[in-house]
Parts: sequence; C-alpha cells; structure tokens
Amino acid sequence: MQEIDSTQLIYAVDLTGTFVFAVSGWLIASKKELDFFGASVIAFITAVGGGTLRDVLIGSQPVGWMADLNYLVAILAGIVAAIFFKRLFEKLRKTMFLFDSIGIGLFTILGLEKTLSFGLSPVVAIMMGTISAVFGGVLRDTLVNEIPLIFRKEIYATVCLSGGILYWLMGILEVNADLQIILTIIYIISFRILSVVNNWSFRAIK
Amino acid sequence: MQEIDSTQLIYAVDLTGTFVFAVSGWLIASKKELDFFGASVIAFITAVGGGTLRDVLIGSQPVGWMADLNYLVAILAGIVAAIFFKRLFEKLRKTMFLFDSIGIGLFTILGLEKTLSFGLSPVVAIMMGTISAVFGGVLRDTLVNEIPLIFRKEIYATVCLSGGILYWLMGILEVNADLQIILTIIYIISFRILSVVNNWSFRAIK
Amino acid sequence: MQEIDSTQLIYAVDLTGTFVFAVSGWLIASKKELDFFGASVIAFITAVGGGTLRDVLIGSQPVGWMADLNYLVAILAGIVAAIFFKRLFEKLRKTMFLFDSIGIGLFTILGLEKTLSFGLSPVVAIMMGTISAVFGGVLRDTLVNEIPLIFRKEIYATVCLSGGILYWLMGILEVNADLQIILTIIYIISFRILSVVNNWSFRAIK
Repeated sequence: MQEIDSTQLIYAVDLTGTFVFAVSGWLIASKKELDFFGASVIAFITAVGGGTLRDVLIGSQPVGWMADLNYLVAILAGIVAAIFFKRLFEKLRKTMFLFDSIGIGLFTILGLEKTLSFGLSPVVAIMMGTISAVFGGVLRDTLVNEIPLIFRKEIYATVCLSGGILYWLMGILEVNADLQIILTIIYIISFRILSVVNNWSFRAIK
Repeated sequence: MQEIDSTQLIYAVDLTGTFVFAVSGWLIASKKELDFFGASVIAFITAVGGGTLRDVLIGSQPVGWMADLNYLVAILAGIVAAIFFKRLFEKLRKTMFLFDSIGIGLFTILGLEKTLSFGLSPVVAIMMGTISAVFGGVLRDTLVNEIPLIFRKEIYATVCLSGGILYWLMGILEVNADLQIILTIIYIISFRILSVVNNWSFRAIK
Repeated sequence: MQEIDSTQLIYAVDLTGTFVFAVSGWLIASKKELDFFGASVIAFITAVGGGTLRDVLIGSQPVGWMADLNYLVAILAGIVAAIFFKRLFEKLRKTMFLFDSIGIGLFTILGLEKTLSFGLSPVVAIMMGTISAVFGGVLRDTLVNEIPLIFRKEIYATVCLSGGILYWLMGILEVNADLQIILTIIYIISFRILSVVNNWSFRAIK
C-alpha cells in the first residue's frame, strides 16, 4: 500500500488509519453479543476489508496486507488498545473522529493511486479509492446484521468520492504531490466535521 | 463482456440489461430507509455484482465493468431514470419484467461463454452463467438485510440454470450461434412468464 | 486442493469434509424458509466458501473446486444425502460432529499449506488455513440473515487457529509429515469435543 511514498509519513499514517479502523471495529462489535474472538475478527475486517476488495477487483493478489505484516501488527495493537482503553476511547470521541477522518482520507488517496497504477480510468480509480475507505465499515455492519450505516444516514462515502475527485483534479492541474495529499485530507476532515456539526445527510427516499 | 459479439445487438442488450438491473436495484432500495447515495450503491451492485463475482472466481481481473466505461454510463442512466420516472417504471411492471428476463438470459449466456473461454468445464460454465445473472440480486437483498429473494420464493435461478443447459446442449448439437442465443432467451422469457402466471415455486422445506 | 498428497487418504478426507459441510449446510438451511434450490445453494456455499475466499485472496484462480469436478460431486452427494436421510443425520449428531471436526482439521491444514506454497508468511498461512475451515459457515449464517455463529458462541475458530499453529510448529520441528497431519487432526477433534462437553466459550463482551 506504499504506492505513493513521497514520504515515510504516509506509510505511518496508513498504519495509523489501520489501527484506528481496528479500534472502531472492535468498539462497535463489542456492543453486539460477540465473544472476544468475534469482535477481533470484526476489527480485522473493518481495517482491511476495503483494501482487500479493491485489490481483488483490480487483480492485485496476494492482497496488500498479506505482503506486509506491519498491517497485522497495527490491527493487533488496535484490538489490544480497544480492550484496555475502551472507556478512554469512548471519551476521546473527537480525537478518534479526527484519526478516522485522516484514515479515510489516506485510504481514499492510496486506493485511487493504486488503481491508476493498474492502468484503469480515473472514474474507476475514484470509485476504488472510495471502496478502500468505506467497504470495511460496510462489511462490519453487514456481519453484525445491520443495514450498513453508510446506506442509511451518513454522507460518509460522499466525502470520499468528492475528496477523490478533488485529489484527481489537483493531479491534472499538476499541484505538488505533498500539497495534493495534505489539501485532500484537510478537505475530507473539514467536510466530515461540517456534516456532523450541521447534521447533514441525504433524506431517505420516500 | 463482449465475448460473443456475433452482433452488436448483443452488446446493446447487455448494456440494456445492466440499465434494467440498475433501475430495479434502485427501486427496491428506495423502499428501504436508504438515502440517495445508498440506493445508488445498491443499484450499482445489483447491476454488476453477478459479473464481478464470476470474473473474480475465474480470475478475469480487472473485472469486466472496470475496463469499459459504458457499463458505468448504463448504470448511471438507470439511476437517473429510476429517480425521474419512478412511477412510470412501477406502472410498466410488465415491460420491466420483459427487459429483466432478457437481461438475465443474456447475462447467463455471456457468463457461460466467458467461463468456457477460460478453459473451464461446461458444468462450471453453467454455474458461472447463473451466478452472472442472479448474484447481483443476492447481494442487493443481503445488503438491505433480507434473506435473498432467490433463496425463498422464486425459481429465478432454475430458469437460468436450465437456460444455461439448453444453450450448452444447442452448442453441442452445433445449432447456429444466433439461433442458439435467440432460442435460449425465448426459453428463459417463456419459463419466467409461465412461472409467474402459474405461481410456480418450490415448496419451502418443512 | 491436493497440495499435500502424501497419501490418497487426504484427498479422500478432503472430499469427505466437503460432503459433510454440504450436509450440515443443507440441514441448517432447511430450518429456514428456503426452497429446495435455496437450501442447495447454501449447502454449496457452506462447502466451498472457505476455500474460495482463500484462493481469491492469495490469487489462485480459477478457484480450487472449479478445476476438479469431484468437489461438485461430493456436494451433490451431500445434498442428496441430506434430503433422503435428514432424520438419520439428526440422530447421528455425534458422528456428524466427528466428521465435521475432521473436515475443519483437514481444511485448516490444506489451506495453510496452499498459502505457504504461494510464498506467504506463516502468520498469514495460519489465518488462511482458519478461513478455509470456517468461512463457509460464516457465509451460510450471513446469507440466512443471522449474526454468524462463529462470532457469537463457539470457539470454533480458536480450534482452527491453534491447530494451525500446532501444525506449523511441528513443521519447524521437522516432525514426519503424516504424523504432523494426524496429530493436528487429533488435537482439533479433542479440543472441539472438550469445548462442547465443558461448554467452553468466550464470554460475550459487556
């Protein structure tokens, strides 16, 4: 997943995103009647589900996390952290939200770049970027037997899609690569914060 | 997905099938508490889910719709049409049913041919043809948290399976390729109409 | 799936495992409001789901059961047997449980070996072995709209994971290959029997 390694920073943030997704997966699973093992599996799937689907669809196998054990270490750390600091995480909602937003921003960009590197079109790349960011959560919700959150309330995926488009447009305009990444992340964080603060959502169809 | 291009007609009908599947996916999703985005995703998955699973299982990656943007255009058109002409589509149930039947017939044949072209056996090809036709609907139902329709009431898949066998037998008997396609489609449409008119279904197991 | 063919016995037990999984899939599906076709699909998915996911993730396509029709024959036999001997199977719970345990043991080992043969790390191989053994059941439960059993009550997967670790350790210690397989199977059977007898399970998280 180090397709863009303009800096080591990105790799670190990607691992951080994986860690945060594992934590959030575990916290959500722990509200269901799941045992320790089940919750860990859900945490794992939440963290790698998106990238795995992307890799399988574009034909990049073995899928990303299999080739670099650091992803498994990040997930394990997320599970351990969720177990020991459950209350802390529930208090630090805002911090978690920030990390989660950075995570989906990075996942969107990494997924987009990887898809382009396979010679596919920008439209498909933007979709794959979004899938990388959101599909883990979709799987998580489906496995705990709920209609995925993303299909019901939030404009979560819209943030990724529009962030992907923004990122791609900046690429066309030959914006500096670091700036391109930073601006996209800032855009995604701002959009998500605004949408939560203002309670934005698409109306359910009647 | 243009493995059989004995005519441009087939390509056009394949795109039409994709369009119709997107419409039906959107209409079904719109009855659930889904927002605009969620319903669009369900429409997309309904349209490409079957072909995607087939391509991943036989190892044809990147999967079909990624390589030809016309499929995305057909889906987008289906979503737009479903939004603006929702009532019309609900009135035109019979026309929709006809298109849907043509769609599953074509998807069955295309899936079967593509699988054979990968050197797999006819039995597997008939299964993959059926998966191409029905799996989109299975995913749609699973995502909106219902036991897939296909597992409960309809003999939908039986139509595809038997249609696939018919198509394959005609291939063995060296029937003219166009005739082979047309007869299979007619068989599938007739079988589905008869099954709906007569309310055929397998009994639930007790 | 004949990666380890130290004996024809393993191939036979693999097919037996497939048969048993198909039977158990059909029996569970038959308690839901599924028609004959739906129950057969669930039986099929239960039997091949794990190996299919493993093959797709590691990039071994077309997936295993497509290349060897004996797997389809074993599944068909399982479905036919489940239909005709439903009551018998329900009486023979203990025998079924034994076969099922042998099945998951074998599936774990075969999945682990296949993953190693693709040059992936032992940690990933143990995970893939476990996925081979348990994912069919996860899919089955998800499709019939339940939170997968494995996430709720049983320590099913723990058995596979620890069995995989044991098998791998014996490999490091250069234990004779046949012995390695037999001891792993005995371990898995014993662990499962003990866990059921003693009603072991992880507590649900509160």
